[in-house]
Amino acid sequence: STAATGTPGTVKLAVIPGDGIGQEVTAEALKVLAVAAPAGVTFEQTRYDLGAERYLATGEVLPDSVLAEIREHDAILLGAVGGKPNDPNLPPGILERGLLLRLRFELDHYVNLRPSRIYPGTASPLSAETLGSEPVDFVVVREGTEGPYTGNGGALRVGTPHEVATEVSVNTAFGVERVVRDAFARAQRRPRKKLTLVHKTNVLVHAGSVWWRITQEVAREFPEVTVDYMHVDATMIHLTTNPSRFDVIVTDNLFGDIVTDLAAAITGGIGLAASGNVNPDRTTPSMFEPVHGSAPDIAGQQIADPTAAILSAALLLDHLGHTEAAGVIERAVIDDLAERTPGATRSTPEVGDAIAKRVGG
Amino acid sequence: STAATGTPGTVKLAVIPGDGIGQEVTAEALKVLAVAAPAGVTFEQTRYDLGAERYLATGEVLPDSVLAEIREHDAILLGAVGGKPNDPNLPPGILERGLLLRLRFELDHYVNLRPSRIYPGTASPLSAETLGSEPVDFVVVREGTEGPYTGNGGALRVGTPHEVATEVSVNTAFGVERVVRDAFARAQRRPRKKLTLVHKTNVLVHAGSVWWRITQEVAREFPEVTVDYMHVDATMIHLTTNPSRFDVIVTDNLFGDIVTDLAAAITGGIGLAASGNVNPDRTTPSMFEPVHGSAPDIAGQQIADPTAAILSAALLLDHLGHTEAAGVIERAVIDDLAERTPGATRSTPEVGDAIAKRVGG
Ligand SMILES: CC(C)[C@H](C(=O)O)[C@@H](O)C(=O)O
Ligand SMILES: CC(C)[C@H](C(=O)O)[C@@H](O)C(=O)O
Repeated sequence: STAATGTPGTVKLAVIPGDGIGQEVTAEALKVLAVAAPAGVTFEQTRYDLGAERYLATGEVLPDSVLAEIREHDAILLGAVGGKPNDPNLPPGILERGLLLRLRFELDHYVNLRPSRIYPGTASPLSAETLGSEPVDFVVVREGTEGPYTGNGGALRVGTPHEVATEVSVNTAFGVERVVRDAFARAQRRPRKKLTLVHKTNVLVHAGSVWWRITQEVAREFPEVTVDYMHVDATMIHLTTNPSRFDVIVTDNLFGDIVTDLAAAITGGIGLAASGNVNPDRTTPSMFEPVHGSAPDIAGQQIADPTAAILSAALLLDHLGHTEAAGVIERAVIDDLAERTPGATRSTPEVGDAIAKRVGG
Repeated sequence: STAATGTPGTVKLAVIPGDGIGQEVTAEALKVLAVAAPAGVTFEQTRYDLGAERYLATGEVLPDSVLAEIREHDAILLGAVGGKPNDPNLPPGILERGLLLRLRFELDHYVNLRPSRIYPGTASPLSAETLGSEPVDFVVVREGTEGPYTGNGGALRVGTPHEVATEVSVNTAFGVERVVRDAFARAQRRPRKKLTLVHKTNVLVHAGSVWWRITQEVAREFPEVTVDYMHVDATMIHLTTNPSRFDVIVTDNLFGDIVTDLAAAITGGIGLAASGNVNPDRTTPSMFEPVHGSAPDIAGQQIADPTAAILSAALLLDHLGHTEAAGVIERAVIDDLAERTPGATRSTPEVGDAIAKRVGG
């Protein structure tokens, strides 16, 4: 993972298809990746069967030895993890925290990158009047290693009428600064050069102060970037009434989780939302995954839309410096979306094949 | 405030117009309340000038003596509090926490009630296709006295590169149970009898467990109520793609803040969203307020929509047992909304007058 970016050679790719539709969509992402690989670039894949199935069979979530192996790769492609809701053998959160979040935390994926675009021809639940004529094209930079996701907190007198349960959001100047700086750098590279800090500074004053202060401080290094601030609750309103106003949003781990699902919903649905769990310092492999979950209710039917996984593969290529190949995938997706017939359904492999064909042609 | 409900007599009403448009919309709510009062019911108002203006002039947010006076009332009508964003003389959150949240916490308003309906003729940012033909009519029961809103947490090495800031979400079985039971009781009284618990149990496992466990336990007392669970991120998607599926949502203080702004946005905007901070035990006065803020940018122009404040007055009447009078206001609002001409603007008092006239007629 310390290899120079954008050069020919072998990319060591760890593949974690996960559970449910994770398996199905990952197959399509790999199909497209194989066709999109630039000349001289080979993907050497290692498949890791991690997720609900492995846990239920063996009690293992992410053995240390497996994590050590994964760490030696150049990048990770992940499908989705999560078992059936309310499975009594799956304690809530065990996979999410033991696998998905453990990877994000151990590999220090402090930039959780979630681009949000309404591609031409994509259906949005928002009315045409709401959308207007300005393009919707923003990216959410969600902090990935702190906030309410640290697992800090605990519970006392569990299961009794006197139970007290706490969750501690941990925010460090170090952690906030690096993600805010990354978000500013991205804003600087975009035509509109606009950054919106989303938080809840009027209530969460301790965490809010550090986010606010550091955003003001880093802003001085990026005089061309316009900065504004929005409360997370008000962000709900602006995203649903005027989403084109956003360019780069930077926010904490939990607000980012919420905001990006709303962003996905209004930009054509979770079937299209890609994400990267990025370590911009490149000291560990970054991980790319669709925003959607394992959808046990539709698993095994090959009806899930693999587009989000395919766009995640494009983010992976982009992160590895293969910007052009990433662009080819994105254009293939745009063309495919433009020709989708509303109401018509294609199977998961049909969508993958169609996009792979465009990439190859 | 221990008076029997729904009976004639004098209602001691504490009025806190607050800042910005809070002043303007409260005037209209009082206008309508005066006309709607049932025979024999008199509102004895005491006005409390609290908010940014008072703080900036005197340094006082909510003196203990004022709180003690307010406590002696039967109900509170509040406009909105909050000064200009980034006013250097207004530390972030001082009014929100020192006034609004202090009232909610001191008066133990553990049910923060936020009805969400799309009234006929109201514009939604969602497309007609998304909305379909099922009515959107749900209520969010937001916990009001715990969660991440307690102010627990703190900061170390403030202002340095080594700052660590924490926010602690506190969740007690006692606090969760009473609000969950209230939500079930509301679901039981509604035709669809459906309750959705919204949380993030897969990540916030300590808090999530207590919310989950207690919801299951209380469910046994309400066998007619159908219960489901939804992650807060997934809720973003369902609210924007299929809002009619919801009936009663119960959730914590912060998730409720976020979910209700989204609910307000999709049901016609923050100009229509009313709320009640209710103490169902009636040991303290409950407080009614629009969901919107003080909107300093449009304050003083009399262009704010007072409908949310007027609907909050209806919730106040309902809470006091004057269900019929509350219904009269709601119907007047529905009729007014149905006749609003898109694009045409009326001033704040014009809207108040129109609704008051319908209530009176
Ligand atoms: C599965 C869950 C732990 C995860 C998260 O909360 O981050 C998911 O919702 C996401 O957004 O990637
Ligand atoms: C002003 C703010 C403290 C308040 C909250 O967060 O509860 C507001 O957003 C609300 O929803 O009533």
